[in-house]
Amino acid sequence: MSNIIIINGPNLNLLGVREKGIYGDMDFQTYFDVLRQSHDGVTLTYFQSNHEGAIIDKIHEVGFSMDGIVLNAGAYTHTSLAIGDAIAAVTTPVVEVHISNVYARESFRHHSYLAKNCKGVICGFGLDGYRLAVESLLIK
Amino acid sequence: MSNIIIINGPNLNLLGVREKGIYGDMDFQTYFDVLRQSHDGVTLTYFQSNHEGAIIDKIHEVGFSMDGIVLNAGAYTHTSLAIGDAIAAVTTPVVEVHISNVYARESFRHHSYLAKNCKGVICGFGLDGYRLAVESLLIK
Amino acid sequence: MSNIIIINGPNLNLLGVREKGIYGDMDFQTYFDVLRQSHDGVTLTYFQSNHEGAIIDKIHEVGFSMDGIVLNAGAYTHTSLAIGDAIAAVTTPVVEVHISNVYARESFRHHSYLAKNCKGVICGFGLDGYRLAVESLLIK
Amino acid sequence: MSNIIIINGPNLNLLGVREKGIYGDMDFQTYFDVLRQSHDGVTLTYFQSNHEGAIIDKIHEVGFSMDGIVLNAGAYTHTSLAIGDAIAAVTTPVVEVHISNVYARESFRHHSYLAKNCKGVICGFGLDGYRLAVESLLIK
Amino acid sequence: MSNIIIINGPNLNLLGVREKGIYGDMDFQTYFDVLRQSHDGVTLTYFQSNHEGAIIDKIHEVGFSMDGIVLNAGAYTHTSLAIGDAIAAVTTPVVEVHISNVYARESFRHHSYLAKNCKGVICGFGLDGYRLAVESLLIK
Amino acid sequence: MSNIIIINGPNLNLLGVREKGIYGDMDFQTYFDVLRQSHDGVTLTYFQSNHEGAIIDKIHEVGFSMDGIVLNAGAYTHTSLAIGDAIAAVTTPVVEVHISNVYARESFRHHSYLAKNCKGVICGFGLDGYRLAVESLLIK
Amino acid sequence: MSNIIIINGPNLNLLGVREKGIYGDMDFQTYFDVLRQSHDGVTLTYFQSNHEGAIIDKIHEVGFSMDGIVLNAGAYTHTSLAIGDAIAAVTTPVVEVHISNVYARESFRHHSYLAKNCKGVICGFGLDGYRLAVESLLIK
Amino acid sequence: MSNIIIINGPNLNLLGVREKGIYGDMDFQTYFDVLRQSHDGVTLTYFQSNHEGAIIDKIHEVGFSMDGIVLNAGAYTHTSLAIGDAIAAVTTPVVEVHISNVYARESFRHHSYLAKNCKGVICGFGLDGYRLAVESLLIK
Amino acid sequence: MSNIIIINGPNLNLLGVREKGIYGDMDFQTYFDVLRQSHDGVTLTYFQSNHEGAIIDKIHEVGFSMDGIVLNAGAYTHTSLAIGDAIAAVTTPVVEVHISNVYARESFRHHSYLAKNCKGVICGFGLDGYRLAVESLLIK
Amino acid sequence: MSNIIIINGPNLNLLGVREKGIYGDMDFQTYFDVLRQSHDGVTLTYFQSNHEGAIIDKIHEVGFSMDGIVLNAGAYTHTSLAIGDAIAAVTTPVVEVHISNVYARESFRHHSYLAKNCKGVICGFGLDGYRLAVESLLIK
Amino acid sequence: MSNIIIINGPNLNLLGVREKGIYGDMDFQTYFDVLRQSHDGVTLTYFQSNHEGAIIDKIHEVGFSMDGIVLNAGAYTHTSLAIGDAIAAVTTPVVEVHISNVYARESFRHHSYLAKNCKGVICGFGLDGYRLAVESLLIK
Amino acid sequence: MSNIIIINGPNLNLLGVREKGIYGDMDFQTYFDVLRQSHDGVTLTYFQSNHEGAIIDKIHEVGFSMDGIVLNAGAYTHTSLAIGDAIAAVTTPVVEVHISNVYARESFRHHSYLAKNCKGVICGFGLDGYRLAVESLLIK
Repeated sequence: MSNIIIINGPNLNLLGVREKGIYGDMDFQTYFDVLRQSHDGVTLTYFQSNHEGAIIDKIHEVGFSMDGIVLNAGAYTHTSLAIGDAIAAVTTPVVEVHISNVYARESFRHHSYLAKNCKGVICGFGLDGYRLAVESLLIK
Repeated sequence: MSNIIIINGPNLNLLGVREKGIYGDMDFQTYFDVLRQSHDGVTLTYFQSNHEGAIIDKIHEVGFSMDGIVLNAGAYTHTSLAIGDAIAAVTTPVVEVHISNVYARESFRHHSYLAKNCKGVICGFGLDGYRLAVESLLIK
Repeated sequence: MSNIIIINGPNLNLLGVREKGIYGDMDFQTYFDVLRQSHDGVTLTYFQSNHEGAIIDKIHEVGFSMDGIVLNAGAYTHTSLAIGDAIAAVTTPVVEVHISNVYARESFRHHSYLAKNCKGVICGFGLDGYRLAVESLLIK
Repeated sequence: MSNIIIINGPNLNLLGVREKGIYGDMDFQTYFDVLRQSHDGVTLTYFQSNHEGAIIDKIHEVGFSMDGIVLNAGAYTHTSLAIGDAIAAVTTPVVEVHISNVYARESFRHHSYLAKNCKGVICGFGLDGYRLAVESLLIK
Repeated sequence: MSNIIIINGPNLNLLGVREKGIYGDMDFQTYFDVLRQSHDGVTLTYFQSNHEGAIIDKIHEVGFSMDGIVLNAGAYTHTSLAIGDAIAAVTTPVVEVHISNVYARESFRHHSYLAKNCKGVICGFGLDGYRLAVESLLIK
Repeated sequence: MSNIIIINGPNLNLLGVREKGIYGDMDFQTYFDVLRQSHDGVTLTYFQSNHEGAIIDKIHEVGFSMDGIVLNAGAYTHTSLAIGDAIAAVTTPVVEVHISNVYARESFRHHSYLAKNCKGVICGFGLDGYRLAVESLLIK
Repeated sequence: MSNIIIINGPNLNLLGVREKGIYGDMDFQTYFDVLRQSHDGVTLTYFQSNHEGAIIDKIHEVGFSMDGIVLNAGAYTHTSLAIGDAIAAVTTPVVEVHISNVYARESFRHHSYLAKNCKGVICGFGLDGYRLAVESLLIK
Repeated sequence: MSNIIIINGPNLNLLGVREKGIYGDMDFQTYFDVLRQSHDGVTLTYFQSNHEGAIIDKIHEVGFSMDGIVLNAGAYTHTSLAIGDAIAAVTTPVVEVHISNVYARESFRHHSYLAKNCKGVICGFGLDGYRLAVESLLIK
Repeated sequence: MSNIIIINGPNLNLLGVREKGIYGDMDFQTYFDVLRQSHDGVTLTYFQSNHEGAIIDKIHEVGFSMDGIVLNAGAYTHTSLAIGDAIAAVTTPVVEVHISNVYARESFRHHSYLAKNCKGVICGFGLDGYRLAVESLLIK
Repeated sequence: MSNIIIINGPNLNLLGVREKGIYGDMDFQTYFDVLRQSHDGVTLTYFQSNHEGAIIDKIHEVGFSMDGIVLNAGAYTHTSLAIGDAIAAVTTPVVEVHISNVYARESFRHHSYLAKNCKGVICGFGLDGYRLAVESLLIK
Repeated sequence: MSNIIIINGPNLNLLGVREKGIYGDMDFQTYFDVLRQSHDGVTLTYFQSNHEGAIIDKIHEVGFSMDGIVLNAGAYTHTSLAIGDAIAAVTTPVVEVHISNVYARESFRHHSYLAKNCKGVICGFGLDGYRLAVESLLIK
Repeated sequence: MSNIIIINGPNLNLLGVREKGIYGDMDFQTYFDVLRQSHDGVTLTYFQSNHEGAIIDKIHEVGFSMDGIVLNAGAYTHTSLAIGDAIAAVTTPVVEVHISNVYARESFRHHSYLAKNCKGVICGFGLDGYRLAVESLLIK
């Protein structure tokens, strides 16, 4: 039985509400319910916060016991060295996910403070990026 | 009846206390009371936080129903892409305000992560910048 | 009785003619007439030139006697250190105005050679920026 | 029945031979045989070249008829605007893959000329990145 | 009958006088007379000024009625955002011309504030660049 | 009797747990107890948070009454202009401390938004840096 | 009798197929046939390759005997110092051509490794740029 | 008998009026009269303009017949490539002068577009810099 | 018995003489005498030179036998890679000290060629920085 | 018996033909014949290509069996990360050679993508650099 | 009676010997003898060293008693922050001199670490720059 | 009979003592004795100093009479424009040598102030680089 958590960062609580041209019109809870049901043998949990500190707290809380963290840190990806340090500090592998293709957007979204400490990065596949990330953590 | 909120960011709770040479010696509550009374037909509310996440939460909370947000994000103006994204995510127009003339200060205060998503920017007029911002939101 | 002059820089003689998507379709004279009538106790005058030197000459001419200058230097904002020096040289306060939100445009429009010597900056509010600028100069 | 091609760029013919600390010790053909067998309903083909021009030729050849291209352009990712233009020119979706976590390596590997024209990017998962990329192309 | 104007910028009044190693030893009037005679059905006019503002004034004056502008803005090419804005503001197509190959000279001559708003750029062909520019405007 | 507070920023709650190669294997509470006992005439208190806003709140709370702040802001040192502004806003002297020698690490750790507003900086001495910082505040 | 060759670089074999919004919908062969017929006394030949090395080989092959090379090196313009060196190494004059106005596109298309070694540059005139280039080589 | 002209650029008509802390309180005419009288055998003339184009026109007018130009181009020193080109175009030697020590001021005043085409540069000696410049032109 | 040397670099022989606003008005010898008397069990010696080479010679001379070096290399801190290499070459631990808070001064004083090879850095505490440095070397 | 190969990159097939001022007037084959005869006990072979991919193919082919590679990659030195990766991937030591002193030429020739993976670099000695490189590989 | 010293830095002992194209063919001693004789009432002395430290020592030695220092620090002008600090530390005014026009040479000669602490800068007038500098120090 | 001198710069007196992982464990004198004996017809001398000025003095002393200088300026390679100027000033050819492969080390070791004035550069071959340099100077 694998324990995996999805952590979403700032503004991702508005998925399905804001900027549908970029992020699509499905709210995350609906997507998450489908995702959870499609993976037997995996306990999937979900956490969202707009607070950088709360994301760090959560990474600390789960980062020594869970089997994987799927992290879409939103804009904090590009500005938070502190979250990058938190990933380096814990032992649970972290996969960085982005819904949109950040490389097709503003140049300040091309740099990640997190990526070098993550297992890998998946971006551009819409909400399906989360599913690919979960699967990447289940590969033996 | 217009609903407008003033959101102040980090260290602005110390207005009238800190660095009076730059920010003047009036505390914000005194100024706000005068400002509220001088605008009939406008419901003015006020929120201050030193927490980036709390400012994002507040923008989400009011950003689909109120008529205007006057935002002085203080130092977060220059470092918070997440607040910039929050402004882009909501539908209420946001006006960026700075008390001091940021262009006459250190170069890292010349760049704003918020401005491109705002309706406009007003800076350098002291506390009166808030009044000009409220008026800019009332123009039909 | 306050004496305030609006100085417009290069290409702003084409307002209402050029690039209406960015600058709107009202010509400046029409706007100016309305603005002048709405402020009792203020003598508003207007000057436009495509010549950097003519703008400097005008700032020198009025900059020791008038009560305020509202300056939209257009593209010279971003390239003219000489106009910036002229503002520093005179005693009349200058307010920098931009019709469009320059921060949402090309990056070379984000830097101003003028701003640090101005009283303040107002941008993004269309032609109403001029009205806000006049009011900022009337605040006691 | 889906038609998907994996295109590998320079030096990837040495997988399992060179720098095993970074790239692992499995040769690509062995991996590819397993991958091909595990996907019913998908015709997987494979192409490798050390020649920038040959990669462009191949993208042109398959890029209007196949259902997906999984592209690990190796070092050309970071230097070949011409391959980036080829991706933009064809209609088949392309997924960029990297075996290693390029963000944990030299800074000149952080920039991709390809990514902005791709559907998405997957990096850091070793050879399993190819499997995730194939799956990302099969998502309806 | 086409109406085309050639506008030359600063120091180009000295053609044939200054720096013959770079610009050749023919004065512009001699060249212009030949050029005018060799194009039937085209009314060619000529304007030169060392004043940035005068060039903007001229672009405004002809830019809504003439069929083409051939513009060699000299050093203003590299420093005048205001002329670049003027080109964007008018409807007559503008072709940027340089006598010398600016890419073989100092690096500050490699950037043009004008080019992105022009129809095209022709450089390096000596005075014949003007002829090529006129022809480019006559192509249907 | 001197009142001095030690404020630790993000991830420093994991001292003795994470990355022992960089930060050593002593947890901070053990170190702090020894430090407190070795200074008669000093009231030492301790605060840790992963939240940028909470650190600012704490600086405001103690920054007008205590005699000294020893601040290890961790990663926020390099990204938080808001904490830098908070230090400038209060009257209590602040000493910036780093456990590791940040100049021997990644280049983005070489810049501090805090240092210019601090009394001084001490880095590279392991946990003993806190003791040196306390002593620096006790020097008359 | 003049001998002139047109050399097209990567992805230009897709003219009329790819990205018609940028490059138009005429295929190059059709254009070339018309161009060839309209110039008596000129032997026009044509070469296209997606291979940087093949373009260099061709420049060497023709660069000491032909009368002119019209070179649209596509993306290699911006990345290939080797083609730039090849142009410097031969004696036949080379004219750099671009179909689109590269200065109105991404900034990495503004720099050319070729231009300083070419006779001149022509860009932005669509396929007619080839005709202007041929004419520029015929000017005595 | 030597013919030397002093050309002053933008804002220097305000000498003795503006920013006396930087530029001193003597107006230029008073200084010029003294200077003229102290040099027998030299015909000194004086020209000032706030117009970049007028300065270029003047350099052209005198630059092939006079014996020396003392040029304080003010802010145009740092932004006017066109004046730099004018200096290169004429045969009269030009000496660049600055009243203040520009190297002790903002960094954008450290670069000169003019200096490389001048005979020499003299800065920081107040109005006496003009005298030194005249003398430098009289040295045989 | 510990052997520790204080090495001062260029211009520090003028302590108490030059720029008292930055460096205070105590000469170093007076401070050193007090410092030496306050540490039993420590043999403190002192060396000053304005010569980069002499500082390297001294580091070599003591750097394999003494117990600690307290080094204030003054301006050489920011320009001397050779001293940085000398520190890396010896086995005695070196502590970098600055009297003033270099981070509150010009940006070229923020970079140190020495720091990464030192045990730690102490800056901003006036002459007391030397005492803190000595103590940091005595910590077991 | 040592096996050493000399690999020459783009445009070096024109040695003795092109730019004799920079590269001299001896063709490489003549030089190579002399070089081969002067080293007993060494089997010297030679390969030249203008194709980046062909150079990579050749490095792969010989890079696990030969005793040394002397590589003059010409312009690819400065643009080809892929050749740099190929050098890192093989086990045969590679010596980078340049005929001219690249540090006395354009700044874009000062950077090498290859050097850090090579045994060493030799530049500026004309064709004799190849001989020095061969000797450097024969040193035991 | 004024006491003025001329201090020359590295390689200036070779004046009249090295690079006569840049520096002329007069040796400094010959020039100095003439200069000394032409100024009554001035005691001129001369010092040259190739040692940065020796120049600092000399500035300290004379910098509190003499009336002026004429300093041509040669290449140290561009690399020695330590000499720049020495100038700031003394009270005697320093005039920076360069024989050649450094702005017409390599870009790394355009920056001076000394200039901002000097009274003024004179460059480009050959050896006569020393005379102008002496005169600038004699101006009352 | 050739006269060649080897000049070693800062910290190279510690060869065989310091950082053996980078520089090996042979002291230079031992190496030098072997080198001297292996070259008949060459008078080899040796000089080492940690003083930039002493290296310049030595280059001046030998640079007009000896047949070659082998210069390993150590860290001064990257910071000393003055040594670079000294090389340009003398007539004896200079070969720059580095023991380690500087391109595989920190980026600030990739730039040389000396190289452009040297005959050539040899780096990465350990102490054998000196032998190759001597041989390069003996090539006729």
